[in-house]
Amino acid sequence: MKLDGKSVAILIANSGTEEVEFLKPKEALENAGAKVTVISEKAEAAQAVNGDLEPAGKHEVDTTFAEADATRFDAVVIPGGTVGADHLRADKDAVAFVRHFVEQEKPVAAICHGPWLLVEADVVKGRTLTSFPSLQTDIRNAGGTWEDKEVVVDSGLVTSRNPDDLPAFCAKLVEEVAEGKHADMGRSA
Amino acid sequence: MKLDGKSVAILIANSGTEEVEFLKPKEALENAGAKVTVISEKAEAAQAVNGDLEPAGKHEVDTTFAEADATRFDAVVIPGGTVGADHLRADKDAVAFVRHFVEQEKPVAAICHGPWLLVEADVVKGRTLTSFPSLQTDIRNAGGTWEDKEVVVDSGLVTSRNPDDLPAFCAKLVEEVAEGKHADMGRSA
Repeated sequence: MKLDGKSVAILIANSGTEEVEFLKPKEALENAGAKVTVISEKAEAAQAVNGDLEPAGKHEVDTTFAEADATRFDAVVIPGGTVGADHLRADKDAVAFVRHFVEQEKPVAAICHGPWLLVEADVVKGRTLTSFPSLQTDIRNAGGTWEDKEVVVDSGLVTSRNPDDLPAFCAKLVEEVAEGKHADMGRSA
Repeated sequence: MKLDGKSVAILIANSGTEEVEFLKPKEALENAGAKVTVISEKAEAAQAVNGDLEPAGKHEVDTTFAEADATRFDAVVIPGGTVGADHLRADKDAVAFVRHFVEQEKPVAAICHGPWLLVEADVVKGRTLTSFPSLQTDIRNAGGTWEDKEVVVDSGLVTSRNPDDLPAFCAKLVEEVAEGKHADMGRSA
């Protein structure tokens, strides 16, 4: 399959990640042949949400940001959820983990409130991206160009706005992971 | 009483405002003699939260951002709650409402995730403030100086980090409202 042999990290906050933005990219990657590893702040099942506040399912975690070796992965996916993304950006190990992928020119995909982690990792400067609209000022203030499109791809950086964009997001995610390292990806690191 | 004749606006999101950060400042202002008006996106009871995700009480709303006349108030209070603050910053009328107070040099108090609204209103440049720690990068990127203190007062701008800071926040809030307009408050507007 297209992603045979690829190993992809997907982040989930211990609480508050938007469930469908975790499940759909994970499924798309696995259906394309990738091995997906779930990483969180804590080594315990993560409580996801539907929308902003409604409790959704609990999801098993494979390892923690403190334990995970970023060099072992080919790409990273950052789901949204207002509370979940706010928690992830507050975890120094999660921020360093994501920063590694930009520095190493590996694909990074972030949806909805997920791009806050890119702002926190200071890898937005000079990049074009989208997000949930409430983040657009934070992204511009961090030096990025914000666009209102269902999916924006900028040299290995894939971003989308909300769960409705998931089909386009997942398609571009699989494509970018298949392509591998992007020579221009590290320019904002 | 100290705030007799003062009229203060307090914001609450239709969902996701941290309840205690709404109730305690409201109570402190009312106990000091101020008339407090509750303003939200919609003219319906607002669903508050405890912490990030736990449902708390529903609270009556007096008017909406679209209907409210900012010139009639002497000060504004912006509670936190991750989801609530994210909703408030996405409401253009709420952003314009808050911006008025800075332009008119009237006291503004924001706690926890509330300062996102100040980032959105572009009134942070050259100011010193605090917030929930996850916002510090957004505040610095907006041109502010972020400090890790229970309460920071900068010429009529009162900010705190979280519910534990409420006693200090409410005391300074009452003090700044009592003082009235601050000649230097408008410098970031």
